[in-house]
Parts: sequence; structure tokens; C-alpha cells
Amino acid sequence: MMYIRNEDTICAPATVPGTGAISVIRITGPEALAIADKVITCSKGKICDSKGYTMKFGIVKSASGDVLDEVVASIFRAPRSYTGENSVEISCHASSYIVSSLMGLLYEAGARAAEPGEFTQRAFLNGKMDLAQAEAVADVISSQNAAAHRIAFKQMKGGFSSELRSMRSELLELVSLMELELDFSEEEVEFADRSRLDSLLVNITGHISGLIDSFRLGNAIKNGVPVAIAGATNTGKSTLLNALLGEDRAIVSDIHGTTRDTIEETLNIDGILFRFIDTAGLRETTETVEKIGIERTFKKISEASIVLGMVDITRDPESTRDTIREILDKVDFSCQQLIILLNKTDIADTGNALDLIDLELRLKNLESEVSGNHILPISARTGSGINTLRSLLAATQRDLLADSETTLVTNQRHVQALTDARTSLLRVRDGLASGLPTDLAAQDIREAIYHIGSIVGEISTDEVLGNIFANFCIGK
Amino acid sequence: MMYIRNEDTICAPATVPGTGAISVIRITGPEALAIADKVITCSKGKICDSKGYTMKFGIVKSASGDVLDEVVASIFRAPRSYTGENSVEISCHASSYIVSSLMGLLYEAGARAAEPGEFTQRAFLNGKMDLAQAEAVADVISSQNAAAHRIAFKQMKGGFSSELRSMRSELLELVSLMELELDFSEEEVEFADRSRLDSLLVNITGHISGLIDSFRLGNAIKNGVPVAIAGATNTGKSTLLNALLGEDRAIVSDIHGTTRDTIEETLNIDGILFRFIDTAGLRETTETVEKIGIERTFKKISEASIVLGMVDITRDPESTRDTIREILDKVDFSCQQLIILLNKTDIADTGNALDLIDLELRLKNLESEVSGNHILPISARTGSGINTLRSLLAATQRDLLADSETTLVTNQRHVQALTDARTSLLRVRDGLASGLPTDLAAQDIREAIYHIGSIVGEISTDEVLGNIFANFCIGK
Repeated sequence: MMYIRNEDTICAPATVPGTGAISVIRITGPEALAIADKVITCSKGKICDSKGYTMKFGIVKSASGDVLDEVVASIFRAPRSYTGENSVEISCHASSYIVSSLMGLLYEAGARAAEPGEFTQRAFLNGKMDLAQAEAVADVISSQNAAAHRIAFKQMKGGFSSELRSMRSELLELVSLMELELDFSEEEVEFADRSRLDSLLVNITGHISGLIDSFRLGNAIKNGVPVAIAGATNTGKSTLLNALLGEDRAIVSDIHGTTRDTIEETLNIDGILFRFIDTAGLRETTETVEKIGIERTFKKISEASIVLGMVDITRDPESTRDTIREILDKVDFSCQQLIILLNKTDIADTGNALDLIDLELRLKNLESEVSGNHILPISARTGSGINTLRSLLAATQRDLLADSETTLVTNQRHVQALTDARTSLLRVRDGLASGLPTDLAAQDIREAIYHIGSIVGEISTDEVLGNIFANFCIGK
Repeated sequence: MMYIRNEDTICAPATVPGTGAISVIRITGPEALAIADKVITCSKGKICDSKGYTMKFGIVKSASGDVLDEVVASIFRAPRSYTGENSVEISCHASSYIVSSLMGLLYEAGARAAEPGEFTQRAFLNGKMDLAQAEAVADVISSQNAAAHRIAFKQMKGGFSSELRSMRSELLELVSLMELELDFSEEEVEFADRSRLDSLLVNITGHISGLIDSFRLGNAIKNGVPVAIAGATNTGKSTLLNALLGEDRAIVSDIHGTTRDTIEETLNIDGILFRFIDTAGLRETTETVEKIGIERTFKKISEASIVLGMVDITRDPESTRDTIREILDKVDFSCQQLIILLNKTDIADTGNALDLIDLELRLKNLESEVSGNHILPISARTGSGINTLRSLLAATQRDLLADSETTLVTNQRHVQALTDARTSLLRVRDGLASGLPTDLAAQDIREAIYHIGSIVGEISTDEVLGNIFANFCIGK
């Protein structure tokens, strides 16, 4: 995947293929305007002579001389284009025959087919955006809800990058002071104030830890807040989900989980994406042969941000108590929120179940963990109480999202780089405390700078770039 | 479907929905520029103040004040736009979230959602194109091959329309002469020269008949030239089709025939679409219960332009002779071409089969109908002879298509209008011959003019328009 050379002029359809009103083909590179002129005959003047941000109407003739289509060419001149190069966007009729014929004519005129993500890669290489911004382009495109879109858009516009840059420049200043000290080491000068150095390291390490921790929320927003449904069997996840969906059926989708045998459903509530994982019905499967499945389910529950504990209030008290105990056992209250649903209020009373819950919470000292408004009588069948549940689910996340200025990390590559940077910085602190020579400490800081720089692409290898842009679609 | 009013400003996504690089949203109508200005904040100047054929870069903010996207607005000023009205095309990131949010903002700013085909309908109502041209827009978009595209594009550019217009003006001249005669009827003046009138009617009726006849070819090019495979069973249509396809597997597609129980396959050879209908295996099904199916199959064969007669040369002479006879019986040589395929040359010799064919052709006096190069030894299994078959199939059509100046009618509505016009004109000739009063003849000519005018939409009803544009996609 070595396509770093910018001297080629590349082209690709930029719109989704299929039959529609119009399709757009993008050309970028040094010969973009000249190649467009070879393929398009404009009624007035040439594309080469046109200013940026203007359009030309023209016809495209096929090799046989027949008119293939009438098109509008949009002209962008370097550096005022997406890639920072001369670019042309050709609007034609959205017919796969026309698009493929037009692409063929562009190849003949000297353009080559763009690799996936090559337009964005050029924008990166031409300094129009850094690597974290380029990665956010793909996230902006795939955002399915307001929250995910906001995070991705902020990153694309460089919010995250500027945070990283200021961290990086602080560390650079630090390391240059330390290296100055080394140059004058024979004179026993100490340019870097050790206690100031230490507090700076603590600050930056704390900042990095915050970013790493934000991944849980950032990832949840991007891919959906994981909600595990635990508890009684036959309570009907689908009945509950259908009730939650109401009339917005169109926004449900089935996505395959990381393990092939779990199917998750996503649901957009108030602009926040939730991912529902059904783990109800666990108790029945106690056979040894199903142990692996059970362990997997436990893992799923442990990954959830919210656990919905389903209690069927028509069951006998003993069975209800068992269900409640089981739910409480599964929740990690340090990082998970529990919402207990008392289902089937249309055919039974919540009294007994409520009393049993109170008792169990007291027995386990969990009264402060499970607040009253997190115990909800509902009827999945009639829809009673469902709106309250929707609001409750949205509220749990809105508090976390309230501070829209906080940067949320959403990319696994960034988390890895931040974790590596933190490891290096912790080594510096340990080293300085135990009297490690300054030059070794400086080297560790340089390593941390390297890792932080790798996020925005100040340091990048062809392989890293290849991996990132290969995941883009062609034409982007 | 009454949306003839042009005072609304309408908007719709113009690109195929899905995740891609860019999406385009179209706005057209009197308020298009003002509405775009409400939604897009441009860095320099306003869209309202911009010239046509220029672009503006700007940002779109959501209701909550967050930046939704950065967009490029392309400005078209009446009449230099697709619809002939002021129009704006907004290029945004191709995310369904962004597109639907942006559409919501446009609705709030005063635009309404466009009905299917409403952009093209406005182009028609604003005199940018006539009805036949508007219908061709949809055909251009759905064209899958060079020949279909050429016909549709020519019609879109008005080739067919100008032919109809000249016919219509000739008839109008004729009828005005006849009506002049009526005004002066008491003076017994005969303005219209009867013999000239008759020869004009013969000319125009002939022209119309030619256009009606061209539908068979025009329709074949648009929907695929129908090729029936007849003859021996177990010869393997799929083996033959796969061999024909070669490496171009991607261009095969299954389309359902008009009867639900036939599945046809289409194949693009040298830019011409062929539609293969398997009718082989007919002989085996002689049970009464399957008679209906057989009749249907015979009908399929009678509709084919080309019949491929499959002969399995490994069979015994008697069986081979039966197959040959059956194939020859089925072909209507007045309008169908027969290509006999001697299959399985990889395991047998063609000698016997060739001799049997010669004999049968002589017995039936068909030597002149089936030329030698239409009898082809092949092996569907090894692919031997298949390239020759491809060339032969393409050649049969290329001759018909050679004269690219000939207008081919591809639309059922147009055939109906032409047939109605011809009926009226034939009535005029009959009437004039039998001494019908001039005023009745003139009325029949007016009727023919009406039918011809209905093709280009000079006369059209809301219902006709509704039917035509409802079949367009939204955004076109």
C-alpha cells in the first residue's frame, strides 16, 4: 500500500454508486484541470483558464464520438480544495453506464484510479489536516447520531489535535531544558527545576489518563452505549425493545457483535445511540457444556455501561428473590448503572416485588447505589412506563455528555498511543525519583513525545498510513 | 399527484443514499438562494449575491448551534439551471445523519420535500425540455449499455421531438388549408389539392408506421435483445451462459420475466444487452398438465429476436433429427434469426449432425434462410467456439444499429400515441376516398395532431404528468 507519491493525478466516483439523479466524480492532482479539459468540451472557455470556485457546463463525448453526457465541472484551485491540490468535481447523470464510461475516459486522458482514502491522505500529506483529523473524516461520515457526530466533527476540525499539540510542546520544552543541562553537565548546572519538572509530569500524565479513560464513553457514543438486559427469562427482550422503539421502527438495526453468536440491536434515543445486549435467560443454562456461553455472557454484562434488570412480577416470591439476587450479583456498581424493571404491571401488582427488592438492597448494603427512580414499574406489552425508561436511559448519558468541551477519545489507535506515552512518562518520574541520569529521562520524554506525535501524524510510517487510509471508502 | 404549482421551493437529496465521500442536496424554486443563505453561513458574501455558475464554501449549524458540516454550495441562476429556476446544490459529507439533519434545516427554512421527478417536471413546465425529452432523462439514467444509452440520450436532446414537431406542423398546415376551404365552402373553392393531400397523408402515415415498427428494436435495445435457447435438454443453458460470460461475471444479472415463473439472464456483449430465455427441455414435458407451461414457452420463443438452437452431437441420429426438426418448426424466419449450435465438440464429431441439418434444411426449403456461418460447432464446457458465437450475436444487432441516425421508439406510451395517430390518419384517407365531408376529415387530422402532440407534452393532463413523473426517483 505505497501510494504516497503526489505527482499522479487521481480520480474516483465520490458519490454512492447506484441509480439516482446525479453522480460526482472527483479528480485531483497536478494535471486535474488539463485532464478534465481533455474529457469535457465546455461551451465557453476552458477549465484550465477558470478561476477556483466556479463551474463550467460542458459535454463529454465517448471514444466513438457520441455524446456520453452533459456535465457540470466544479473547479477548485490549490490550495483551496479538499486535497490542497488542483481538483475538479464532475457532476453527471447518475447512471452506472455513464459513470464507468466517464472513468474510462479519465484513465485514457492520464488520470489513475484513486486508492481507498487517497483523497484524504493527500489532504494529510499536503498539510490540510493532521492524521487525527483525517481519521475523524471517516467517523463524521459514519456517525449515526448527534452525539457521535459532534465528537467526530470536533476532532475533524482539530479540537483534539490542538490539545495534543500543546501537551507535546510542553514536553518538548521540558526535554530541551534537560538536554541543555546535559550540555553543561560538567559545570554542574541544573537548568530544569526538579520539582517544577515533577509537577509538570504529574499534570501531563493526569491529562493523558483522563483522555484514556474518556475512551469508554467516547467509544460508547461512537458505537452505542452498551446496555445489558439481565434477569428473568421469557420476559421478552423483543417486547421491551419494540416498546422502546415505538413508531421509530426504521432506526433499529441488527449488528453482529464481536462474537458471532451474539446479535445486538441498536436504538437511537434523543440523539444517543444505545446498543442492547440480551443476556436474560442465563439461569436456565447450567449444563457444563454451555459453560463457555455463560462465561461469554458474563463478559458481555461486565462490558455494559448500563444493566437493565428484568423482574417478572407475576412469578412466585422465591423465584423473584432469586432473580433479584442474581441481578445484583452481576452489576459492578463502581462503573455500571443498574435500572430494575418490574415488568407486567398490566397483569400484576408491584407490591411484593418492591418489598423483596428493598430487602435485598438492605441485605447487600446497596440502598445508596440503587436510587428509587432507578426501579421502574413497566409493562413492555402495553407500553406503560416505557417513556420514563427512555428518558432515564437518555438522562444517564446526557450528564456525561453535558460538558461538550471535554475531549472524548474514540479511536483505539489513539488510546494505544496515549497509553504508550503515559508508560514512558511514568518511567521518567520513577527514574528521576530514583536518581536516573538526566539523559535517560530525556530519552523517555522523547519517547512520550513520539507517541503523542504519532496520533496527529507528525511521525508516521507508510505502514501506519496504509492501515488508516485502507479503511476509507474509495473517492474519500 | 397534483404538484404543478411552481411557487414552492423544493429540496431533495440528488445522490444515491448511503455512506460515501460526498452527498448532494438540490434546492430549486423562487426562494432557493434565500433558503440556502438561511442554512449556510458562508465565509465570504452571501449566496443571494453570488453569480450563477459559482460556488461558495460555508458552514451549516444545527438547531443546537453545533457545526453540522462544512459544505460547498453551487449556485445556478434562472434560466441557466436544470429546472430553469434559481437552484442551489449543496455538497456535504455523505453521512445519512448529516443529510437528514440538513434536510430538516431546509424544511425549517421554508423549502418542502420534492416529489419523485419533480425537478424534471419543473424543467418540463418551464420549457427546458418537452415531455419526450423528460421521459428520456429516466432512460438515460437507467441505460446499462452503449446502444440503449445512445438512443435515450438522443431522445433527451430532442432528436425524436424535432421529428414529431415537423410531422405535426405538416399536418397543421394541411388542416388549416382544409379549414380555409370550409370557410369558403359556399364558393366551392378547393384550396387543398386532393392528390397532394393524399400523398402527404401516405408519407406521414408511412413515417409513423416506421416509428411504430422501430419499437421492437428500440425496446430490445433498451431492455435487452431477447434470445431464446431452444432444443435439446440437458445441454446446459448455464454452461453456455457461463461460457459466454467468460470473466465478465459481474455483468450478469437475473431479472424476472413478465411471467413470474421465467427467470431471464442478461448479458452485455460489445455494448449491446442480450436477454437470454431458456426454453430448452420442451420436448420432455408432453403431459397434459404442463400444456399451459408449454404454450407460455412457445410464446417466449415467438417473442425472441434470435433463437439459439442447441443440438447435442453425442446423441443418436434419430434423436438429433427430432431436435433439429423441432427447432426449425419453432422459428419464424420472417422476423427471427436462427443460430444452430452443435454442442459438445470436445467429446464428439460434428459430421453426422451437420449432414442431418443439411438434409432437414433442404427438405424444408430453408437453405437460404440459415446461412452456413449460422451453424456453429461449440463446446460450452471447454469454451471452444464461444468467441465466434459472441461475435455473431453482436453482429446480428450491429447491422440493425449501424444507422445511428434512425430514430428508435423505446416507450410504450409513445407507441400507443403513434398508433392512435395512425388510426386517425387512415380514417382520413378512407374518408376522403369515400367522399366524406372535409370538416370530418379535418377533425380526424386534428385528432392525429393531438396524439402526436401528446408525446412531447404539447397537450398533457395532470394525470398523464403524474403517471410519468411518479416513476422517477426523488431528487431527479
